[in-house]
Amino acid sequence: MEEAYITLPKGFKASGVSAGMKCSDPANINKDDPKSSYLDVALIVSDVPANVAGVYTSNLVKGHSLTRTIDIINSGVQVRGIVINSKVANAGVGKAGVEDADLIAGKIAGLLKCDNNQIMTASTGVIGSRLPVDKITKAVPELVDSLSSDEESAHNSEYAMMTTDTVPKEVAATITLADGKEITIAAQAKGSGMIHPNLATMISVFTTDAAISSALLDKALRKAVKYTFNRVSVDGDTSVCDSVIIMANGAAGACEIKEGSEDYELFEQALTELAEDIARKIASDGEGASKFIEIEVTGAADEYDAKLIVTSVARSPLVKTAMFGEDANIGRVLTAVGYSGAKFDPDKIDILVGGMLFFHDGVCVDFDEEEAARILSEHDIFIQIKLSEGDAYDRMFTCDFTYDYVKINGSYRT
Amino acid sequence: MEEAYITLPKGFKASGVSAGMKCSDPANINKDDPKSSYLDVALIVSDVPANVAGVYTSNLVKGHSLTRTIDIINSGVQVRGIVINSKVANAGVGKAGVEDADLIAGKIAGLLKCDNNQIMTASTGVIGSRLPVDKITKAVPELVDSLSSDEESAHNSEYAMMTTDTVPKEVAATITLADGKEITIAAQAKGSGMIHPNLATMISVFTTDAAISSALLDKALRKAVKYTFNRVSVDGDTSVCDSVIIMANGAAGACEIKEGSEDYELFEQALTELAEDIARKIASDGEGASKFIEIEVTGAADEYDAKLIVTSVARSPLVKTAMFGEDANIGRVLTAVGYSGAKFDPDKIDILVGGMLFFHDGVCVDFDEEEAARILSEHDIFIQIKLSEGDAYDRMFTCDFTYDYVKINGSYRT
Repeated sequence: MEEAYITLPKGFKASGVSAGMKCSDPANINKDDPKSSYLDVALIVSDVPANVAGVYTSNLVKGHSLTRTIDIINSGVQVRGIVINSKVANAGVGKAGVEDADLIAGKIAGLLKCDNNQIMTASTGVIGSRLPVDKITKAVPELVDSLSSDEESAHNSEYAMMTTDTVPKEVAATITLADGKEITIAAQAKGSGMIHPNLATMISVFTTDAAISSALLDKALRKAVKYTFNRVSVDGDTSVCDSVIIMANGAAGACEIKEGSEDYELFEQALTELAEDIARKIASDGEGASKFIEIEVTGAADEYDAKLIVTSVARSPLVKTAMFGEDANIGRVLTAVGYSGAKFDPDKIDILVGGMLFFHDGVCVDFDEEEAARILSEHDIFIQIKLSEGDAYDRMFTCDFTYDYVKINGSYRT
Repeated sequence: MEEAYITLPKGFKASGVSAGMKCSDPANINKDDPKSSYLDVALIVSDVPANVAGVYTSNLVKGHSLTRTIDIINSGVQVRGIVINSKVANAGVGKAGVEDADLIAGKIAGLLKCDNNQIMTASTGVIGSRLPVDKITKAVPELVDSLSSDEESAHNSEYAMMTTDTVPKEVAATITLADGKEITIAAQAKGSGMIHPNLATMISVFTTDAAISSALLDKALRKAVKYTFNRVSVDGDTSVCDSVIIMANGAAGACEIKEGSEDYELFEQALTELAEDIARKIASDGEGASKFIEIEVTGAADEYDAKLIVTSVARSPLVKTAMFGEDANIGRVLTAVGYSGAKFDPDKIDILVGGMLFFHDGVCVDFDEEEAARILSEHDIFIQIKLSEGDAYDRMFTCDFTYDYVKINGSYRT
């Protein structure tokens, strides 16, 4: 995908500015620095009210910006946009957290001439600190003034979301519907981590100019995230701010996408492919990661066991450090499958890495060390676990565990 | 405890020798090196047949030396001893694994003039490699000849079990029973990790000269491990070889300890205290650890939720790296409690570290950064999570996540 940015779908604008959270004073920005090092507030808006759907962290503790957004989406209102700040998660500060988010959204709504509850909020960063409301509201006029559908503004909104992400994560696809009209879907995301400090938080925003009801959008989004966003593990920590939001404004002028239609199938498929693409990018750019690891299980007894197995292997620090060290200690994969809680016959398990067989029927085979070293030296590592219990499948994307992960996450808040 | 070693209870002997697994040739041992760097086979025997009990890893995949030992203990036979090797886990090699272990046990049994199935086996090390049976059986005569109840021989058996452990882990206690006679319990353990390579494996052996049936020994051991061995997490990986074995030979000449007696209470209490002591030592000496971390939850709805919470916090790489970095990012503890799966009211949670309040009713308090820095600079970190759901309690011992953890576990097998 050559050009991918959040305002490719018609009728969307974006901007990203510095409110002085990443650097102490926006006036002192060094323009030679990467933009992700100083832009810290992003705004993505639709020209007209848009249908909306979202999926959120399963964490019982939720960030206040997020709970406010969940309330908005659940209310069934059509939204105009979302404001996203990095650096402060706006979580664990009590009732004030929702009020702070509401105040910022209100300033933006005033300038866009819409209702407060048409502007959603998302935050990522340290837990337990209040949002610097003064700084952010001071930046709101510039944020709204610089809204544009051009590529640079779109990228700015992505940079403003980024924290320890080392690369921007933007995807887009255009599909042709039955009426011959084209619709576009685009998405951007921030992956796991903040430099100072340090909360593995994933936020992703999708835009589309398709005409589709919020209910159907919700259905498509839930389907799309299942084996994509919900199968990314960087460190096993589920943040209080994780969310995926999609806005659909109908600006392409195509017919409405109806449930059960071929158009819906096309839309859902495109959405799922984009979700997979961006999920891979998030895992690949996990904090401190030097490798992308895909773990696949086949032949599990049922979906529940299949998920237990890929989750267990993806969370295992011993597996993840072995991959970092390019050490063919595949017994650690067997171990992680064994303690996953899934039921299986340990004498009927095959484990392959990079297509090469390491364990057959639970027994380590006499593998070629040289070829193993070559496979483990690759950036992308594919671990396959084959059981003989049934036909359930699952997969998980993760990354290795490195010195840099410890460095990034052991570093000081201040 | 001044002197603590495995042969303090009467009627036990131990030895530890090099079979050339840790160093290439036992003839070339540099006696200036720490003994744990070259001793690799340990033997602990009772002069007379002993009652026995054990608790084992819940991993569905189990090491072959361990499955053989489980069969022996389940058969109800009185045992003579246990042979333990480091360096090779004897796991994931199929039927040959049990045969290899049996062959080694048989050589020892022949010299001790007992049955094969009176010699238990335990192994720790890399998965998927066959035991070097020739090397080990060649070392058996020296292993048996050097059996002694003296302190040095006992320590040698501990050194031979050690891998990435940086300190030996030995405890002992003497209690006076109702008949005025003293009985002694001693234990030694190896903690998590091997240098080349790298399996978090915990093995612990207890000896006692008390007279107590295997059934009652089993009851006392299960009680003792619940909040001790079963509450140690170094990296969340449950190895295929974890085991705790206790042998009781009655050599103290005291009356038999009967169920429901005061003696039993004393015995169980002493066993539990030793188990806690050694569990703390294992967590404290976890791979690469620079800190010991104790996590306690009170006020949980039930035992199940309480365990979910302490396990979730103890496994969180974000909590563990923050402790390594001495970073008061206590929001990460709140996050880990939130995604634990336990039910609780996020507005009624208090979190204390080192006795200092960081979150009250789910809201971050305005804490003293200087005092926080002092608390986090300590070696021992005590994290308390207070809920208002019920009166269930649990606790977990763990350690921080460091560069050295990644180094140890990313290093090459060969």
